[in-house]
Amino acid sequence: MKKTSRKPELAVPGFMFSGIAAGIKKSGDYDLALIVSDRPATTAGVFTKNSVKAAPVRLAMEHISSGRGQAIVINSGNANACTGKHGMRDAAKVKEKAAKALGLSPEVVYVSSTGVIGKRLPAEKIVQALPELVMKLRPSGLTNASKAIMTTDKYLKATSRRIRIGSKTGTIAAMAKGAGMICPDMATMLCFIMTDISLTHAALNHALIDVVARSFNMISVDNDMSTNDTVMAMANGALENKPLTRNSADYQKFKDTLFSISYELARMIVKDGEGATKCVEITVEGARTESDARLAARSVAGSLLVKTAMYGKDPNWGRIMAAIGYSGAVVKEEDINIIINKVKVVRNGLGTGKEEVLHKVLSEDDIFVTIDLGRGNKSAKALTCDLTEEYIEINAHYGT
Amino acid sequence: MKKTSRKPELAVPGFMFSGIAAGIKKSGDYDLALIVSDRPATTAGVFTKNSVKAAPVRLAMEHISSGRGQAIVINSGNANACTGKHGMRDAAKVKEKAAKALGLSPEVVYVSSTGVIGKRLPAEKIVQALPELVMKLRPSGLTNASKAIMTTDKYLKATSRRIRIGSKTGTIAAMAKGAGMICPDMATMLCFIMTDISLTHAALNHALIDVVARSFNMISVDNDMSTNDTVMAMANGALENKPLTRNSADYQKFKDTLFSISYELARMIVKDGEGATKCVEITVEGARTESDARLAARSVAGSLLVKTAMYGKDPNWGRIMAAIGYSGAVVKEEDINIIINKVKVVRNGLGTGKEEVLHKVLSEDDIFVTIDLGRGNKSAKALTCDLTEEYIEINAHYGT
Repeated sequence: MKKTSRKPELAVPGFMFSGIAAGIKKSGDYDLALIVSDRPATTAGVFTKNSVKAAPVRLAMEHISSGRGQAIVINSGNANACTGKHGMRDAAKVKEKAAKALGLSPEVVYVSSTGVIGKRLPAEKIVQALPELVMKLRPSGLTNASKAIMTTDKYLKATSRRIRIGSKTGTIAAMAKGAGMICPDMATMLCFIMTDISLTHAALNHALIDVVARSFNMISVDNDMSTNDTVMAMANGALENKPLTRNSADYQKFKDTLFSISYELARMIVKDGEGATKCVEITVEGARTESDARLAARSVAGSLLVKTAMYGKDPNWGRIMAAIGYSGAVVKEEDINIIINKVKVVRNGLGTGKEEVLHKVLSEDDIFVTIDLGRGNKSAKALTCDLTEEYIEINAHYGT
Repeated sequence: MKKTSRKPELAVPGFMFSGIAAGIKKSGDYDLALIVSDRPATTAGVFTKNSVKAAPVRLAMEHISSGRGQAIVINSGNANACTGKHGMRDAAKVKEKAAKALGLSPEVVYVSSTGVIGKRLPAEKIVQALPELVMKLRPSGLTNASKAIMTTDKYLKATSRRIRIGSKTGTIAAMAKGAGMICPDMATMLCFIMTDISLTHAALNHALIDVVARSFNMISVDNDMSTNDTVMAMANGALENKPLTRNSADYQKFKDTLFSISYELARMIVKDGEGATKCVEITVEGARTESDARLAARSVAGSLLVKTAMYGKDPNWGRIMAAIGYSGAVVKEEDINIIINKVKVVRNGLGTGKEEVLHKVLSEDDIFVTIDLGRGNKSAKALTCDLTEEYIEINAHYGT
């Protein structure tokens, strides 16, 4: 919470935000958020690859190619997924009514949903709450908006960076909600990124795709995603810089900052994984190809036996070796070296007998596993959390 | 246990078995098993596809192409995996000493191991226990042998069938040990199949590969396997039938019976999944291709959210839809129908509102999920169990 309580940092010139309780969640918690730019913004999005897509995702995918956007309405408490034609109509209704309430064209308004799958969206409740939602819009409202997109998240996830663009200082801020599990294939992950820096649509789109692949997609396994996963970015140009293209001097800096924000939020999501007590970063080095590095990193990150061992401080490094072995990456057992929190546990494929020291360092909250495959110079990182009894408790009764 | 206590059924003409405690397990439980045929047997094997292979698996793969075998020594309590050259030497030593104790050539003796990864095999203990192991060989010893290959299994897994071959009655018997988790990618699965029916090597090999793909491999996810997974079959021809070829009239019958045995053991493994309270059979029908059917069935079977929902009797069918959607199979949301224990929960991609009835039937121990993709006529089955707090407890502290 520390980071997100520094409210001034979370403001982005030209953007206003609000979050309220619209009665979608039975608990009475905040469940409706709004992001609005004071001018049309260059807009890009990355959506779930799941064949079963929620209605708001289908709708957004229809409009995002325009590259324009000015507002996003997000509700939690209901995913509006597996809801058929009704769901599409409900999403379109929210979109139109929100556009009307904001005096905008529906083409620049997006809707996004997260929550239980297969239940009809209470569109009427959302529509009735729109006046309050609009009225409460504030430049400082990002914290409230972040609260309103939470489902099983324990704390809100928002962060920002300032970045020098030519002679001016721009801002990038973002809020996210966590996947239930650390893997987006298993629950919904939403992230909304706002910046006052001007970029061409091609530049923003390219940066977003590249950054998502190295951050949010590396907390997923096998590219599996939920019905609702969405990352959207809006660049409204309030900074009035010359629009960045992929060839601009500052483009790489923008991308690096975007990555830094995204990786920070990805870490927050993992740390807040349901029931998680540890954040585990898997770094694979010495891979023959980048694809091999990613395969191995994700395989270890996705292994239930690795995740339970982390929870139990069990120095069972054999489970890491097994997960590398079945990852599909080209590996040779005797070339593999593994270091966990500075303890060398595997040398040339063999245990070093450091189980006791390893057991001790595994009691730390942040675990860094470095795997050297000894086959080349490519690398990749994946993030995961431990798997605990609490995860089971939370998920055995989520829908009831 | 009912099935396995009918001892006479577990005998196979020409085979003897034993199981003893050799002191590999600290608990003092049985940990060393032996299978011996009184004559050379046609032998086939299917082994883990993991790049990190245990020493006994490497050794077996070197010899299995001969198609001949006469004895298998199996230990539990130590996987002899990630043990490098020492491990290979240890496995070879056990193989040679066992051959000597049995008066056989080492080429027809196989070794197999299961247990913790990365610890040196106590080969000396095994060698010292060989005289007792050989002395205790009995035609009725399969139950003891089954006990000796258990690790975290709660009950032993063995079964048999009689089958008419021409004018004679042959026997197939098999024993297995369970994967820690229901997925062989996560713990070791071993299965040994013995028959007195004579088959050519090609016929036995073909039958085994086909049957494993539809049974043991459908309790795995993404073809992931442990370092030690092994299914071996020995056909010693004691029935003295004309050796079955792939063109023999009785070959299909043999294969069906082999499948029936394998599927029964696969079910036992799932039912005995660590901490499991339910066995869940996923049947996918109406797929465009067999590959699509398998992808979808495995995806649902492997979903943690589905598995926890089954445990919590949570009628959250949206998680099944999501798992179908990210499976990679070609699907259209509105074509999907789902029936769970006779309750139609999804019709044309939409919930039928039967959550209460579904919650009730989910309290049954055996859950049958039938998914119709409405895209063709191919089908596949996968088996899984629920995921419970007990799984976490068992696996958080396995190696310590």
